[in-house]
Amino acid sequence: MRVLVPFAADEPKTRLEGVLSPAERTAFARAMLCDVVAATDAAGGEPTVLSTAPLEFELPRATVVVDDRPLTPAVDARLPTAPGDEPVAVVMADLALATPDVLAELFDTAGDVAIAPGRGAGTNALVVRHSEFRVDYHGGSFLDHREIAAEIGAELAVVDSFRLATDIDEPADLVEVLVHGTDRAPATLRELGFELDADDGRVGVARVGNASSG
Amino acid sequence: MRVLVPFAADEPKTRLEGVLSPAERTAFARAMLCDVVAATDAAGGEPTVLSTAPLEFELPRATVVVDDRPLTPAVDARLPTAPGDEPVAVVMADLALATPDVLAELFDTAGDVAIAPGRGAGTNALVVRHSEFRVDYHGGSFLDHREIAAEIGAELAVVDSFRLATDIDEPADLVEVLVHGTDRAPATLRELGFELDADDGRVGVARVGNASSG
Repeated sequence: MRVLVPFAADEPKTRLEGVLSPAERTAFARAMLCDVVAATDAAGGEPTVLSTAPLEFELPRATVVVDDRPLTPAVDARLPTAPGDEPVAVVMADLALATPDVLAELFDTAGDVAIAPGRGAGTNALVVRHSEFRVDYHGGSFLDHREIAAEIGAELAVVDSFRLATDIDEPADLVEVLVHGTDRAPATLRELGFELDADDGRVGVARVGNASSG
Repeated sequence: MRVLVPFAADEPKTRLEGVLSPAERTAFARAMLCDVVAATDAAGGEPTVLSTAPLEFELPRATVVVDDRPLTPAVDARLPTAPGDEPVAVVMADLALATPDVLAELFDTAGDVAIAPGRGAGTNALVVRHSEFRVDYHGGSFLDHREIAAEIGAELAVVDSFRLATDIDEPADLVEVLVHGTDRAPATLRELGFELDADDGRVGVARVGNASSG
């Protein structure tokens, strides 16, 4: 299955600016992208990174396509348009907990449209088999996608996965990467000095050593 | 399978105090408890509510046991103690998104210990088949439970479910109840005037009408 992995190359992970410098955010975003691409490939998908700008690093196993339009039209331009077209999946580049197993389960989920929702009614991963389905990634996209599917009479499957529901946007999300991540993303955070911190009864992250955030 | 559902009857859902009055928090906590008990029953489990105080309402389909000790010793006292003892599951009372299907999948997951982690390294749901396993619900319990399982040589299975990973603790979590909840918990929120609010691009909740929070 062809799998689009949208990637904001220009301004990666701005909501992490309180804890990571711009260069660190770039490195971390690349590590997550590499993890998602590798897991997609291992799950039998064919990853195409849909990047807002040319990538300045090597990305084995993926085709890279540059499209500087907003997410919605960039994805829409690559969805099935006629009955019988190959299905297309869309997997966000910040799903740092995605594993080959959970992605394979997503790709294998039956239905004209399959969605793995994220917190806050997001659409973290998607499989489109219906030629009339179009995306709308503006806020609350899970609700919009559910409505769009109903409007065109497409059967919707909802994939229940914590790993796919967890997109890494905010400092609190880094805990999940350190607890459940398996590849480059947690390794990058550890190289930057992050570790789990359970001092106050809840688990958070702390940054140790002389690692600079400036 | 016997399923313990721990319930803090005295001080329900204190972290929702910014958006719900004490009486409303009580009503909402009861609605979530009812949903969890009903889903457990429908999944083929035998729910036992492990309450810190006598319940002041009817709860069909559940046995109620009062134990005012902290969560860890109260649960430990009810786990298997000898090889061959029946397995015991523990499902938190604030898993408002739990459905019969996901609970049945949890109960059927093989392994000496099966855990559905929550955000922040919590243990939202658990199945114990190993007679030496004991719980430790103080912060970061998923990490502790993983370690305890390793220490006693118990095989650990991790259940990947967004529905089970989503415990309802904070105001931001109410979005998930309104989007994905299926029973009394979302109905209670709607009766209290809550609805989804996507005005600022992200989905949150808003409270409408004359419903009082005082």
